[in-house]
Order: sequence, then structure tokens, then C-alpha cells
Amino acid sequence: MEPMPSYRALVALRWSDMDVYRHINNVQIVRLLEDARVQAFAAWDDPASAPVLERGVLVARTEVEYLRQLDFRLEPVAIDLWVSRLAGATIELGYEMREPEGDSEPYARAESTLVMFDLAANRPRRLNPVEIERMAKWMDEPVRMRWRR
Amino acid sequence: MEPMPSYRALVALRWSDMDVYRHINNVQIVRLLEDARVQAFAAWDDPASAPVLERGVLVARTEVEYLRQLDFRLEPVAIDLWVSRLAGATIELGYEMREPEGDSEPYARAESTLVMFDLAANRPRRLNPVEIERMAKWMDEPVRMRWRR
Amino acid sequence: MEPMPSYRALVALRWSDMDVYRHINNVQIVRLLEDARVQAFAAWDDPASAPVLERGVLVARTEVEYLRQLDFRLEPVAIDLWVSRLAGATIELGYEMREPEGDSEPYARAESTLVMFDLAANRPRRLNPVEIERMAKWMDEPVRMRWRR
Amino acid sequence: MEPMPSYRALVALRWSDMDVYRHINNVQIVRLLEDARVQAFAAWDDPASAPVLERGVLVARTEVEYLRQLDFRLEPVAIDLWVSRLAGATIELGYEMREPEGDSEPYARAESTLVMFDLAANRPRRLNPVEIERMAKWMDEPVRMRWRR
Repeated sequence: MEPMPSYRALVALRWSDMDVYRHINNVQIVRLLEDARVQAFAAWDDPASAPVLERGVLVARTEVEYLRQLDFRLEPVAIDLWVSRLAGATIELGYEMREPEGDSEPYARAESTLVMFDLAANRPRRLNPVEIERMAKWMDEPVRMRWRR
Repeated sequence: MEPMPSYRALVALRWSDMDVYRHINNVQIVRLLEDARVQAFAAWDDPASAPVLERGVLVARTEVEYLRQLDFRLEPVAIDLWVSRLAGATIELGYEMREPEGDSEPYARAESTLVMFDLAANRPRRLNPVEIERMAKWMDEPVRMRWRR
Repeated sequence: MEPMPSYRALVALRWSDMDVYRHINNVQIVRLLEDARVQAFAAWDDPASAPVLERGVLVARTEVEYLRQLDFRLEPVAIDLWVSRLAGATIELGYEMREPEGDSEPYARAESTLVMFDLAANRPRRLNPVEIERMAKWMDEPVRMRWRR
Repeated sequence: MEPMPSYRALVALRWSDMDVYRHINNVQIVRLLEDARVQAFAAWDDPASAPVLERGVLVARTEVEYLRQLDFRLEPVAIDLWVSRLAGATIELGYEMREPEGDSEPYARAESTLVMFDLAANRPRRLNPVEIERMAKWMDEPVRMRWRR
């Protein structure tokens, strides 16, 4: 079986990501996914077009499973992202947050649905053929959630 | 049909909840859900016991649907919360974020699964009968997600 | 002696404003000052003009003294703001964060220097006579810092 | 003249550090200083003792001058820190935030006063001789603020 063609983002934690329980707070995990996505789009963007993030992207849906506690440390964590669906104006992403080294259990799994948005026209816009071609290279199965009903 | 017995939290927005798109950022919506939950637990807590949040609560799962853009304003938004499942160490909550007045479309719907945690013993703890009795009053159907697969 | 003509903003705390020391984090105190300022500008704005915050305001300088620990609670804290200097494109504000009731020691004192900014032209803009007239009503002595050298 | 013996921290920006003006928000600059300090203390800590941050550190005072706008980018910024005063329970730090490469104007200068705190005893604690010896190596002149009165 071939390895999954995911994009690996390394994201730094902040001391303030911890809450009073002294672990990285669950909402900050969603914040870290945002930064992983920003890195991925910078890599996926068509150099000949305006960056996708500047054109506009809305988040329509987010689902996160927190699998084990993440402690603060100075070293970044790895977030692997891939595209699990591409259709019309919509991109669905899968994410796994894990240690950069070794093969340990992920800290979290997530899925989010993004809608390409034309900020100037204030309405969704369809993915264009170049975007589809570029993102299709990062396509894989939907993330395998553990607790989804 | 009886009205849903949900707990209504009023939560204030912050100017910094806006991102560069000039709307309330999707991750900050999850932050606002956290504060709605803190308010609800303060109301649901058994006055004779240590507050649930001090004993420890972990978030095991979060799912959010963003239904329409929320703009910054000085007035708080309403978040209605209810209990959609109670079992062992687990509480599942439903949420709807909406205008405090009128009957407009919600801004967001969400569901989260919480695990009661004994911070001192570092392990999950079962809900006790008093907690179950108190929370059962806020029980209703699971939140009706629009885009769940 | 006349009472100080300060503007009183009530700002809600968030559970996540606490850091691992279980007190409101010092950086979040600066965040709360921002929201007090947003409330004050909404009150000070000339209704006949574009809101100052939409035209653009930069922070050039901030100084904060943390006088005692602030614990999380569901009730808002009070932040009193006043104008301590008005000149050209510059507004200097004084702040005291305190309990809304009673006459206890403030939690924090702060001062910040703001520069009115024309976002479209990307340069500072002078305060106009209406703005000066409106803000002059909130003018008082500079905040009395305790530890300034 | 010898180069300043400052500690250089590299800190990553987050997309959410931008506010609606599309620049890194002034409060987030204070947040970044916190993470630079966390890195510095990890380097300055006596390996034979409990980490200073776990024993407890309070921020008593912060002063920041924002010298030029910082735009979001994927590359970290540099924050140079040094000790400008050591006395009793108190450490005063100077900071300059700048580009990691080249010799451009800093983005911000800051100073903060920290008080060593014994969380268990809930009171300030004096710096011990080992801490003083280790931090004295990073001692330099107070930061040269531009706008301090």
C-alpha cells in the first residue's frame, strides 16, 4: 500500500495554548488546524493566481476528535492534511495531529469543509480547473473518525 | 409541542474575534461555545459539591456547522445548550448560537462530547446520581445537523 | 473635587483568559483593554461620520501595571477610560480596571497612545475638530503609574 | 563596542494574529513576547532545579512601543531578550522584535518586570544565587524607549 499523499505542516505551540488543566486546550487545537491549513494552501496555491486565502475561504463545518492529551513543549507538532472531497465550491479536508517522529497514536483527528468564497462579490465561487488539478494530488480517503455516529 | 428545555447563555463578542475577513472567526465560535458551557455548568452544578469544572472536564469530540456569518457587535449573542446524552463518564451537549431576540436562522449548530475527569486521580470518573438528576432536566434530542454524513 | 469624567466599560471575562496559574493572564488584560476601547469609541464617535475604528486606529504604545491578581468569574469587570492627551493624530488614553462596585484597589492601570490612521491612504490623519470636541469631554490627568521610572 | 549578549528567540506567527486591519495585532505582539520569554527561561533555567515557569512568575509591568507594522508571513520573527535589572524577587527584561536577517528597524521594543513567585506559598520569592549567576550573563542596559516620558 502506498503512503498517503498528505501535506505535513509543522506548527509551533504557544504557552498560552494551555488552559488551567495544564494541557493544550481543545479550542486551541482547532486554532492549530487553521495554521496547518494556511501552510498547506500556501503550498497548494497556483503561483500564477491570487492566493486562495486572499480570495476568500469560509469554513462551513468542523469536526474534531481529541484522542489524547497534548502537553506544551517548545518543539512543533505535525499536522498531516489531505483533501477528501472536491466539488463545486467545496473542499473537504482531513487532518491528523501527531508527533513529527515515530509512529505514535495521533493527538487528534479532524475534518473540515471549506467553501471557496469571492469576497469582492460576496458569494461562493467554484473551484477552477487549475485549483482542482493542484489539489487533486493531495486527495485521499475521508478521515476515519472513531466516534462518529 | 413543549418548548425545548435548553439553557440560554448570553456571551459577549470581542473585537479580536473578527479575522481579516471582518467576520467572527470560526475558531472563535468554538471559543464562545466554551464560555456558554462554563455558564451552563455554573447553573447546573450541585451547590453541595465541588464545581464540575474544578473537578475536571475533558472535551473528547466537537462538531460545528457554521450556518451564516456572524458580524461583530457590542451586544451579546445567545447560545442555547442542552444535554443530548448522559452515560457513564460522558455528557453530550447540543448547542445553537442565535440572536437573543426573534426567531432567525441560527448562526451555528454544534455538538460536543465531554468526559468527566478526576484531575487528582488522572482518570475519567462516572457521573454521580446527583449530577445525572440535575442534568437530566436539560435533556433533549441530539442537535439536528444539516451536513452530517 | 469633581469626579473624574471617565467612560466606564463593562467587559466580560472568558474562561480561557486564565493561564496555567489559574488567574487572568497578563496578556489577556491587554486584550480586555482593547474591548473597553472599542466600547468607548462607539460612545465617543460622531454619529454623523464613519466610526473611528472603521477609518483606522493604530496602537503606538502601551504600558500596563498589574496591581493585583484577577480571578475568573462570570460577572464582568469595569474598565474606566479617559483621554489624557489629544494632539495632531494622537490620542493618549488612561485606563483603570476595577470591581464595578465598591472602592477597592484597581486590578491594573494602563496607558496607551493611539494614532488615527487613514487606512485607504495608508497614513496617519489628524483628528478633526468634531472628534477633538467630543473627546475633550473625557479629558483628565495622565494615569498615575506606580512603577514608572 | 561588544555586541549585546541578548538571547534570540524565534517565534512563529499565526494567521489569527492578524486583526481586521490585516496586520499583526498589537495585543498579539505582547503574546509573542510571552513565548519569547518562555523560550529564554528554558535556556536560562538551572538544570538542577525546578523550571522557573513551574515555580511561578508573575508579570508586574509591561511597556511596549510599536515601531512599524508587522505583516503575517510563514517565517518566524526574531525577538531578542536581555536582563536589564535583577533585584530581590524582580527581573526586568528588555525585548526587541525584528527580522531574523539583516539590520532593519525593529518592529517593536518592550520592557517587562517579572516577579518570581512561589505558587505553593502564594507569595513572592527572592532569586537564589544560582539564578542570579545564570541570568547575570544576559545583563545589559535598559531598552531605549523612544516615546517614554
